[in-house]
Amino acid sequence: MLTLFGNLDSGNVHKVQTILHARDIPFRRVDVRQDRGQPRDPRFLALNPMGKVPAVRFEDGDVLSDSGALLFHFAEGTGLWPTDRRRQAEVLRWMFFEQYSHEPALAVLRYLMRFAPDPAVQTDRIAELTQKARFVLGVLDDRLATQDWIADAVPTIADLALYPYTRLAGEIGLDPGAWPALSRWLTRVESLPWHLPVYTDAATELIPFEAYFGSVA
Amino acid sequence: MLTLFGNLDSGNVHKVQTILHARDIPFRRVDVRQDRGQPRDPRFLALNPMGKVPAVRFEDGDVLSDSGALLFHFAEGTGLWPTDRRRQAEVLRWMFFEQYSHEPALAVLRYLMRFAPDPAVQTDRIAELTQKARFVLGVLDDRLATQDWIADAVPTIADLALYPYTRLAGEIGLDPGAWPALSRWLTRVESLPWHLPVYTDAATELIPFEAYFGSVA
Repeated sequence: MLTLFGNLDSGNVHKVQTILHARDIPFRRVDVRQDRGQPRDPRFLALNPMGKVPAVRFEDGDVLSDSGALLFHFAEGTGLWPTDRRRQAEVLRWMFFEQYSHEPALAVLRYLMRFAPDPAVQTDRIAELTQKARFVLGVLDDRLATQDWIADAVPTIADLALYPYTRLAGEIGLDPGAWPALSRWLTRVESLPWHLPVYTDAATELIPFEAYFGSVA
Repeated sequence: MLTLFGNLDSGNVHKVQTILHARDIPFRRVDVRQDRGQPRDPRFLALNPMGKVPAVRFEDGDVLSDSGALLFHFAEGTGLWPTDRRRQAEVLRWMFFEQYSHEPALAVLRYLMRFAPDPAVQTDRIAELTQKARFVLGVLDDRLATQDWIADAVPTIADLALYPYTRLAGEIGLDPGAWPALSRWLTRVESLPWHLPVYTDAATELIPFEAYFGSVA
């Protein structure tokens, strides 16, 4: 069985949970939490030197990390990855946009507002990131004003990639309702038969970090 | 002829210049400069709503942006993109690592140290980014200690993606010589027959921003 490393708070982990759920691939999950510094624990780094979740260990021991690479890998043979090269490039374009512009604004802002020890000292950073978050949500809203799905005429892994942190924008004071086309798209994603709500676990088994990695000598 | 939008200071633009040069695809370049705010100029946003360079306009008027998506697009049919799905996912893994972890440390640090109006007020941010930059360069050095190319047994677009900001690390006080395997890899990339040095233009024609977009009413 596949092993997914990650936690329920991470939108990047949610993407991988969703595609595994969509494809009916059973997996167990090892809880790896940023708020405990576990992605930089030497035992986890031995598995994924990038020090990030999500990561997946296949049954043969092979490890693949990065939400985008994992979405791509598990989309093989499904309609979530187009067959035409130009359309594939468009999917990647929006996935890179998510990782480079969208997630670093929305997810970092969420981290600062929810988990940072003293958000008050981060006022400038929060203002800067809020401005960036509004820009990227506006880009998506404009895009979705003329098409139902972000990168193609049908849902693709670009929609899965952009979903969780957009859905969670309310947590950082940016109600998606302010962007009408974006709100309709959220509802559309949530109507997909294999949709997985945020904060929901699709794993068949949950393994605590220490139970999986064992104690350090 | 293709039109590439971007400037010579941007490592992300350099990646696209390199693959066009490697494939002997002629192109003209419209100079779009971050230090003049041109990527957020309404005339450029009409072309690429993401407000980023590089972007490419094809002869039929179709526009594709994002360095990763463009590398993917132009790698079609070359050995720079593997045929096996798992190996393709590995290439994307390192390309996402570059855009999510490597570039936001190295390129943003370079921007703050070279172009920001008052780097002195950014002391904390510079310290934080320097620590992140050392971590990602260490990840690459470890990886390259056991293999010649970053994602596969042969050069791929992941090497092209990771090259420019790694080569430019000296500009931010991080001499690549401190990471021996990484230094040998830089030399290896620079020995490829179609290598394009940073700050080098492969375009057949350079068009100033205002000349291309015309004046605003």
